[in-house]
Amino acid sequence: MDVNQYMQQLGQQARASATAMARASTDNKNKALIAIASDIEQQREALHQANAADLDNGKTKGLDDAPLDRLELTDARIDTMIEGLHQVASLADPVGEITDLSRRPSGIQVGKMRVPLGVIGIIYESRPNVTIEAASLCLKSGNATILRGGSEAIASNRMLAGCIRNGLAATGLPVDAVQVVETTDRAAVGQLITMPEYVDVIMPRGGKGLIERISAEAKVTVIKHLDGICHVFIDEHADSAKAVNIAINAKTHRYGTCNTMETLLIHRAVANELLPELASAYGSLGVELRGCDASRAIVNDMLAATDADWDTEYLAPILSVRVVDSIDQAIEHINRHGSHHTDSIVSENYTNTQRFLMEVDSSSVMINASTRFADGFEYGLGAEIGISTDKIHARGPVGLDGLTSQKYVVLGNGEVRK
Amino acid sequence: MDVNQYMQQLGQQARASATAMARASTDNKNKALIAIASDIEQQREALHQANAADLDNGKTKGLDDAPLDRLELTDARIDTMIEGLHQVASLADPVGEITDLSRRPSGIQVGKMRVPLGVIGIIYESRPNVTIEAASLCLKSGNATILRGGSEAIASNRMLAGCIRNGLAATGLPVDAVQVVETTDRAAVGQLITMPEYVDVIMPRGGKGLIERISAEAKVTVIKHLDGICHVFIDEHADSAKAVNIAINAKTHRYGTCNTMETLLIHRAVANELLPELASAYGSLGVELRGCDASRAIVNDMLAATDADWDTEYLAPILSVRVVDSIDQAIEHINRHGSHHTDSIVSENYTNTQRFLMEVDSSSVMINASTRFADGFEYGLGAEIGISTDKIHARGPVGLDGLTSQKYVVLGNGEVRK
Repeated sequence: MDVNQYMQQLGQQARASATAMARASTDNKNKALIAIASDIEQQREALHQANAADLDNGKTKGLDDAPLDRLELTDARIDTMIEGLHQVASLADPVGEITDLSRRPSGIQVGKMRVPLGVIGIIYESRPNVTIEAASLCLKSGNATILRGGSEAIASNRMLAGCIRNGLAATGLPVDAVQVVETTDRAAVGQLITMPEYVDVIMPRGGKGLIERISAEAKVTVIKHLDGICHVFIDEHADSAKAVNIAINAKTHRYGTCNTMETLLIHRAVANELLPELASAYGSLGVELRGCDASRAIVNDMLAATDADWDTEYLAPILSVRVVDSIDQAIEHINRHGSHHTDSIVSENYTNTQRFLMEVDSSSVMINASTRFADGFEYGLGAEIGISTDKIHARGPVGLDGLTSQKYVVLGNGEVRK
Repeated sequence: MDVNQYMQQLGQQARASATAMARASTDNKNKALIAIASDIEQQREALHQANAADLDNGKTKGLDDAPLDRLELTDARIDTMIEGLHQVASLADPVGEITDLSRRPSGIQVGKMRVPLGVIGIIYESRPNVTIEAASLCLKSGNATILRGGSEAIASNRMLAGCIRNGLAATGLPVDAVQVVETTDRAAVGQLITMPEYVDVIMPRGGKGLIERISAEAKVTVIKHLDGICHVFIDEHADSAKAVNIAINAKTHRYGTCNTMETLLIHRAVANELLPELASAYGSLGVELRGCDASRAIVNDMLAATDADWDTEYLAPILSVRVVDSIDQAIEHINRHGSHHTDSIVSENYTNTQRFLMEVDSSSVMINASTRFADGFEYGLGAEIGISTDKIHARGPVGLDGLTSQKYVVLGNGEVRK
């Protein structure tokens, strides 16, 4: 069978499983999640062996330390996968929730019911723990899933696929409700993203290049997270202590995360007071500053920012700094250079905070809080399959609700249109 | 300027206007809608002249009566456009609505704010009244819009575009917030649907062929309505009077609408009792019946349905009829042959109604009500830009809310991530 036929077969099987998944009981889905967790525990040794084979191949291929680290399934990571499955089992089931039910003049009651999306394709890099994370959230939300992990993790993913099938089979759910693509042929991705008859939505997780390529070629809706160029704007009416705390935390709490601040905007009226203190704090934490001319006039040893800096996601201890003349300029900068991910204003001025909230076009907009809070767990979603920087369907952290949509339900008593 | 450059210019202007539209006050948007209505009233004669030119050209081109009728702007239709603008002005503004605001353990409050999508591209056929309908809903929901109507309506649409610009200018809103494509070059559509940098979502209105073509070629999310193959299922536990009323109304209230029933499914246990009565009622209303073998064994003069009938949207006084053995078979038939638009069960059995509600994968699922209720006005949306048979973002009738999305808002008091 060629790879396109193989993918079509996976698609057909996923579509066929989606109906049973949509009507699966919460209890059955939870039991399947627990059964998968048990199976992973039982197969821990076999999983280590499969993962060791992946790691050996990766080393032979000359993978760097960072990807090798992401590829490794340590006992701690296996424990986390098992805990994650139990945690997803403990979350409320979004499927079937009816909201906004109201009676219309005709007599009918109209409301909305939350239902699974159908078949979700997930494309990700060589991190086998994502296989379980993604599978568990899609399963709980009643979707069928096709998982396409990085080729370096193929042996680990095959083992995990077996655990998932065992768990599904043990609870009477269709074993094809979660399928792992078991070929490393790159054509599999091309086929997966162009089968709207079998796949309802694609969620890629990985580098910006991968996601842009998938978006350009997909014939299916892609819920995507491109990059996180996040800003903190210190307004002229900022509380100084809050401003410093938030600016330091948003940059230095973690450097490699998408909700880390990459550019600090500061109002000219408070730049003289706050920039030296901030520069000193950043300096002592090893953060390199790259500033506009006005910033460098205040903090002389700052490097000069280039045009490219405003559009760069550093994911590193580097911060660009710009002095702005007004909140308008700050909002304009963010909407132009940001990635519509997460941006925060520090201000005590009511009108400015409300304008920022309304006018900044990002998936998370904050007042007096660190951008690092943009996270499914911090938002109370219980879990997160990713963060969407799209505008359609789901924005921001995507939890179980983001894996569902709402259909209309009409409850009548024999009503007809007059 | 070539057509691609022209469309890119419209795109840039739309994108530039979208920011101002997103923060426009409700009052300003309402005033603009009223001003557009006044301008249409003032230019009624010029509008008739432009429309007469379109009609003349249409006749010369050999258009049939039906498209010529859709193209015509009678005084009644102009009145309806004017009333529509006033009505949209009276609707609640969805932009800025904050919901689900709750406090998290960290101290931050997290909620969702409704915001415009940005730039919406609308592609439709030669019905100039759609220009005003679509423009008014997009304007009220704070979006910028690019409208591409059928080429036969170009003179009428140019006039209406002028009225819209005058109304926007009179209230200080950006005049490029609503732009009508003023070329009939077909390449304009191809460009419009492949500019994700300027257009956030495409909503085509028209025939299935047009929409399928657009979906296949678009590089932007398409919110689409393909067809309306709607079902009524008369369960074995149906109330006979409700069943007959609903089955007659769903088919015969109007024949050409997408929420009209095209296939009647009836449980074998009640087919002998109800089918003859229904056949007689349909017969007296001039509806042609095409049945399965079991149906024809009960009503002998029914035509035989072919396989193609189950997949056909007649939009005509024709109904296909199938006897099913169980609710499972009914649900299976609907999910396989339907268009995920609107389907209704007639039943007094609690479990069957709940199963139907959960398991039928359509944008509107009904119990004991006519499918004809699937409509933005009947659902209380106030207005409707179309009905989505998609699963992503918006399902069913799309009103002002469907032209917005929700971003996360975080209200803090200096909180940082620990």
